[in-house]
Amino acid sequence: MKEKQLLMIPGPTPVPPSVLKSMAAPMINHRGTEYAGLQREILRKLKLVFQTDNEVIIFPASGTGGLESVVTNLLSPGDRVLSLTIGVFGDRFARIAETFGAEVERMAFEWGQPADAGMLEERLSRPDADRIKAVLVTHNETSTGVVNDMEAIAGAVRSHSALLLVDAISGLIAMDLPVDRLGLDAVVAGSQKAFMIPPGLTFAALSPRALEASKTARMPRYYWDFGMMLKSMAKDQTPYTPAVSLLYALDEALRLIEAETMPRSFARHQVLGEMTRRAMEALGMDLFAREGCRSNSVTAVRAPSGLDMKAFRKLLRERYNVVLGGGQQKLESEIFRIGHLGFSGPFDIIGTVAAIEMALAEMGVPAALGQGVQAAQKELMKVGASL
Amino acid sequence: MKEKQLLMIPGPTPVPPSVLKSMAAPMINHRGTEYAGLQREILRKLKLVFQTDNEVIIFPASGTGGLESVVTNLLSPGDRVLSLTIGVFGDRFARIAETFGAEVERMAFEWGQPADAGMLEERLSRPDADRIKAVLVTHNETSTGVVNDMEAIAGAVRSHSALLLVDAISGLIAMDLPVDRLGLDAVVAGSQKAFMIPPGLTFAALSPRALEASKTARMPRYYWDFGMMLKSMAKDQTPYTPAVSLLYALDEALRLIEAETMPRSFARHQVLGEMTRRAMEALGMDLFAREGCRSNSVTAVRAPSGLDMKAFRKLLRERYNVVLGGGQQKLESEIFRIGHLGFSGPFDIIGTVAAIEMALAEMGVPAALGQGVQAAQKELMKVGASL
Repeated sequence: MKEKQLLMIPGPTPVPPSVLKSMAAPMINHRGTEYAGLQREILRKLKLVFQTDNEVIIFPASGTGGLESVVTNLLSPGDRVLSLTIGVFGDRFARIAETFGAEVERMAFEWGQPADAGMLEERLSRPDADRIKAVLVTHNETSTGVVNDMEAIAGAVRSHSALLLVDAISGLIAMDLPVDRLGLDAVVAGSQKAFMIPPGLTFAALSPRALEASKTARMPRYYWDFGMMLKSMAKDQTPYTPAVSLLYALDEALRLIEAETMPRSFARHQVLGEMTRRAMEALGMDLFAREGCRSNSVTAVRAPSGLDMKAFRKLLRERYNVVLGGGQQKLESEIFRIGHLGFSGPFDIIGTVAAIEMALAEMGVPAALGQGVQAAQKELMKVGASL
Repeated sequence: MKEKQLLMIPGPTPVPPSVLKSMAAPMINHRGTEYAGLQREILRKLKLVFQTDNEVIIFPASGTGGLESVVTNLLSPGDRVLSLTIGVFGDRFARIAETFGAEVERMAFEWGQPADAGMLEERLSRPDADRIKAVLVTHNETSTGVVNDMEAIAGAVRSHSALLLVDAISGLIAMDLPVDRLGLDAVVAGSQKAFMIPPGLTFAALSPRALEASKTARMPRYYWDFGMMLKSMAKDQTPYTPAVSLLYALDEALRLIEAETMPRSFARHQVLGEMTRRAMEALGMDLFAREGCRSNSVTAVRAPSGLDMKAFRKLLRERYNVVLGGGQQKLESEIFRIGHLGFSGPFDIIGTVAAIEMALAEMGVPAALGQGVQAAQKELMKVGASL
């Protein structure tokens, strides 16, 4: 039965029934009072999930658009930018800055490793560091399953004047990112991740320092212009038509998240991550991310040597209706990825692990059926409360 | 009953039940085969509504983003652009080009009037006209209810080397715009208009000449980059996560449009436009758009002198649950606008006219109840077939 699919990719993530249902409501006038109330309520709840009192704005766009918005509003052509990249999405953030004329200095770390805050601190203490206008960093690198230590990175940037711009698209809500406490200047998120709604919305939380910088930054922007957006938002509107049905979905999903509470959301993702990691290890597979920086949104698993990754994922998809993510770019034949963020529960993990066991067995990889499941069960049983 | 609202604004337009329902389907992997099939089928149908064999691309964004995409992909900073503006949205198109460094020459026409193709032809025949790289024009100006004569404008540009870039956001599908026959180089549309789906998608149809120009154009773009998009689309994917639920809606709405057929869609919008125009005139009100260029998507009506426009629209909204558009910018207290595009039928018009009659009477404007309705009925009865 097709609809019984386990969609275990790091976004788009499954959407809860009440959120799917919310999108079937009729359109409303986006210049009217009903819309104004909807937008105000959404912004209140968005501040909760960003853990911020900063301005949060919404663009009808994919997350990549959110990244482009913070680059173009906060920087000028020729600005020196330090880019910490640990995978595909860190590279993308850097390329966007380059495209618009920033002078990008890359501090690239081996894939599977997090950014080294000590090296960052050292770099920022060199005499020529005062030229650095912004540091770009990925909170959770979706391509490698690595979460950066944002506390340490924010600490390293704190005594420097650079703005800290964070791609938190696949991390926010799944893992604790206290935006205000860490003093993050721009934090971008996307709807199709732990927000549990379909793709098509991106968000940016902007510190007063970021808003100040946007007033003099000279990269060209119109669609992404913060000034125009904030002016319109002050009247409970948007400068151009908002994505109304996705906002209905957002309102409902944020209601669910507020009811769960953020600490319980982090704890649930932590358990799902542990269950997945222990299960894969029990099946004799290595995790791609180094110990100590493993993401609770997505787990990257090194394929057993000789396993045909394409055939493996195809078997899972076609026979068991379980969809995993593949490796991106140079990791295509090295890893597979299990998404466990958003509307994801322990039995999604157990089913997925069981399917992986069966697929491995069918492809001739020695793996005892039930061994991974058992490891996941043990993790779940450690938890004193229901998820 | 709130859900019985008549939403008569020029977008977002009402969404048919089957389209609303389509969005409640679960997410799928946007890198998988099921998505690939969906995207291929959507592109086939999109070409029908654009009446083109050109490439058509889809961005998760509002229509303004589509305009930004054609500007930034087809032009370089310093390029001379001739902008025909007849209202708010023509001004927006011009401002986007300016923002990214084009040298914009405005040919502005009085609001309520269409662009004059003769003046355009004359301008393009002057000796310095070879510097003009592109002509920007609005197909249907939503703010004034004026539709431009695209046949004449395309004719005037044809013998010149300039690219013709068209904002057809509120016109496409409602009024005939044969993209290939007219040789339009870039045509932008948006989902929340006659496409009958919620806001959040924008489309651009691109001629081979436009695609050629995009290879050397130097305005910065990443999110909007045509090259990256087309490369990804050749593999039935997109460079970043597509707005899956809105694509479900698009697929279903295009199915409805294909079943209605484009000629019958144009004819229906023509009847709805005529019904509205005749009804307003029968109530003694003037149409804002000049005779001969009146839009079948939206009708702008000059308010009777002394009528408090805000109170009038509020009364309609709160007492009769009928939502009209207001005037934009300098037209705020001069006009109101009736949207009649997309999922709109004759009894939406009749109900709206009846509500306007009652609201006018309640506000002390002399208008015989039923007089506008009668004029609308007469128009509808002229039509030999059902709409």
